Amino acid sequence: MIFEEKTVDSTTYFDGRIIKLKVDTVVLPDGRSATRELVNHPGGVGIIALDKDDMVYMVRQYRKPYDEIVLEIPAGKLNYGEDPFQCGKRELKEEVGVTADNFECLGVYYPTPGFCDEKITLYLATDLQYGNTNPDDDEYLEIEKYKIDDLYTMVMNNEIHDAKTAIAILKTYSKVRR
Amino acid sequence: MIFEEKTVDSTTYFDGRIIKLKVDTVVLPDGRSATRELVNHPGGVGIIALDKDDMVYMVRQYRKPYDEIVLEIPAGKLNYGEDPFQCGKRELKEEVGVTADNFECLGVYYPTPGFCDEKITLYLATDLQYGNTNPDDDEYLEIEKYKIDDLYTMVMNNEIHDAKTAIAILKTYSKVRR
Repeated sequence: MIFEEKTVDSTTYFDGRIIKLKVDTVVLPDGRSATRELVNHPGGVGIIALDKDDMVYMVRQYRKPYDEIVLEIPAGKLNYGEDPFQCGKRELKEEVGVTADNFECLGVYYPTPGFCDEKITLYLATDLQYGNTNPDDDEYLEIEKYKIDDLYTMVMNNEIHDAKTAIAILKTYSKVRR
Repeated sequence: MIFEEKTVDSTTYFDGRIIKLKVDTVVLPDGRSATRELVNHPGGVGIIALDKDDMVYMVRQYRKPYDEIVLEIPAGKLNYGEDPFQCGKRELKEEVGVTADNFECLGVYYPTPGFCDEKITLYLATDLQYGNTNPDDDEYLEIEKYKIDDLYTMVMNNEIHDAKTAIAILKTYSKVRR
């Protein structure tokens, strides 16, 4: 049986610039209570930009939580309450200097349903125009272009680790090549 | 240019049963400093179990962060230091009562590279045997079976929201149907 948990208590432990952490106490079906450690996040957006030669714009950047350089599609956090589509257009322009005449939503994804409420909206951008980049002050990244077929092979070979990037590549490849 | 951030200070704000939250101060290439809000997570595992009739075992459960019922592949958190493969086999047995003779790794995924160090390892399980379920004490879920082709259509129609589940379905479909 599926049961929706009733919250009976909530304590906030951290209220930061981006995330918030709280511990909720919930009541289970048998009457016992349990605690849930929860992170609030404003949500994010990722954009896979595909040009007329089936090349995709990717960014390679240092990611502090993993202490690693990670290859990803352009992406960004929403400001609280911001429209994902507006955020996606902005991040695409800022990070890779691209604007697009055509956007298709590839879905809304829950990256970590166990503990965090982040939702990531993905877009496929086509009919591209090129300009200058304008990254955030504390953002250092390299732009690379890959053929969509090569990215698909990289995902199938377990060489792409960012989850939103894997989804965007697999769905775009399905749309373009099937 | 890619730059690896140097941590000069770290303050822990929460050290819980599952996650830990800290704020690190890092030095940027231009010498300025910036703060990074970071969540530590033990990591997780997800298993897509495909039977001989190309049916997949899915679980439907309430997810507190979204206050929603979410359709996912069987999955679980690692105990700190636990081997993902052992955890995957255990969760598959506990949640859907299935054991498998064959496991293939579908990759290691980073769900939220901006703020959390969680890694999710995905497995495709085949050659299945069926037994009894044994869910965690505070876990309430329903088991459903879907044809892999129908799950693929659901992902392409943006009807699957869990990120690990979307990746596992798309990669499994590619392996089975291409």
